[in-house]
Amino acid sequence: MELVFIRHGQSQWNAKNLFTGWRDVNLSEQGVAEAIAAGQKLKEKGYQFDIAFTSVLTRAIKTCNIVLEESDQLWVPQIKTWRLNERHYGQLQGLDKKQTAEKYGDEQVHIWRRSYDTLPPLLPQDDEFSAHNDRRYAHLPDDVIPDGENLKVTLARVLPIWHDKIAPAILSGKRVLVTAHGNSLRALAKHIEGISDNDIMALEIPTGQPLVYQLDDNLNVLKKFYL
Amino acid sequence: MELVFIRHGQSQWNAKNLFTGWRDVNLSEQGVAEAIAAGQKLKEKGYQFDIAFTSVLTRAIKTCNIVLEESDQLWVPQIKTWRLNERHYGQLQGLDKKQTAEKYGDEQVHIWRRSYDTLPPLLPQDDEFSAHNDRRYAHLPDDVIPDGENLKVTLARVLPIWHDKIAPAILSGKRVLVTAHGNSLRALAKHIEGISDNDIMALEIPTGQPLVYQLDDNLNVLKKFYL
Repeated sequence: MELVFIRHGQSQWNAKNLFTGWRDVNLSEQGVAEAIAAGQKLKEKGYQFDIAFTSVLTRAIKTCNIVLEESDQLWVPQIKTWRLNERHYGQLQGLDKKQTAEKYGDEQVHIWRRSYDTLPPLLPQDDEFSAHNDRRYAHLPDDVIPDGENLKVTLARVLPIWHDKIAPAILSGKRVLVTAHGNSLRALAKHIEGISDNDIMALEIPTGQPLVYQLDDNLNVLKKFYL
Repeated sequence: MELVFIRHGQSQWNAKNLFTGWRDVNLSEQGVAEAIAAGQKLKEKGYQFDIAFTSVLTRAIKTCNIVLEESDQLWVPQIKTWRLNERHYGQLQGLDKKQTAEKYGDEQVHIWRRSYDTLPPLLPQDDEFSAHNDRRYAHLPDDVIPDGENLKVTLARVLPIWHDKIAPAILSGKRVLVTAHGNSLRALAKHIEGISDNDIMALEIPTGQPLVYQLDDNLNVLKKFYL
């Protein structure tokens, strides 16, 4: 059984070195090119999917759509879920990473980026860009919508979609594509590979590179490689 | 309650004057431009959707994706279903419309295009381009997969998705977008507006123009207009 992850390509804010998180920023031209290349590589290698999962953020959905179109399978059913969103970066969202370092100090920013369980400063719920004021999350109770996350919290909200939808799809024989974000994929990788809290933050999944997991009947990893 | 239809823009084969049907042809540049314009118009007028339905053919899915992206709602859940596919044109698919007229005569071609219940010559199931040999229809029994359709047959296979998914979504208060094809939308319009078998073939839904239906609690049409 195979499972393929793709981390979305460069966004307009990656290019500007801004914290993005749940802010809904589109792909840059380079990001689109990365998605096209990923789709063409999958086509070349004969990868076919039965279902695709992505987040509710434009840059991941668009990557998914481009990958499916380039590999001649845009018709594949697609599930868009907030549970695969990027880690919510709280008040850091929209800030220049360099300016943030100047304001809070390099070490604090390093902790926010690399600690497994330290929360960033939380975004007030009345902030213009709070997810509480975004209709795509209107079906969720207020205490479920995050205002800032560490990877531990990200993993906790990603896991239900793994247990309820992705794992059952794989176990029923479906070939699954997951197109998401650096931290939501890192969280899934932690769970699938059984990586420790200490080691997980060092795992970097490169953008636009299809990551293939070959799994056994208990969803243990037999082999893992980049296409 | 409101329901919006969009017929996909120009495809590469529309531009070449070929019968397309279930052949999976992409949008032309003009078709992409039509989809962008439709999305921008919806955004300008403040149209928001809760769910989108489309076919399993690239030109309709891509129109849907572009429309959602341009109106800042690419995250809206999307259902892709074969039931919204274009009318299957049987053996005419891939033929130049002018050559077909020369081969079969103008009158016969006119009948195939404009008769409610005359079938086109059926495509053999072992044809390279038969839907029987396309994995997107592999979950369907052979006798459900069409080899050629008139509008009557098209309507019969479109209706279940209306009754089972689209109508219940509207009745539950969801704002629904349907992005599909000339004949699958014509079939839905026949049902919603109660147009007779004789009159329906004269109904032309222009490409890329959002068609808005305002409906009462019994899904009767109160008002119908193009944006």
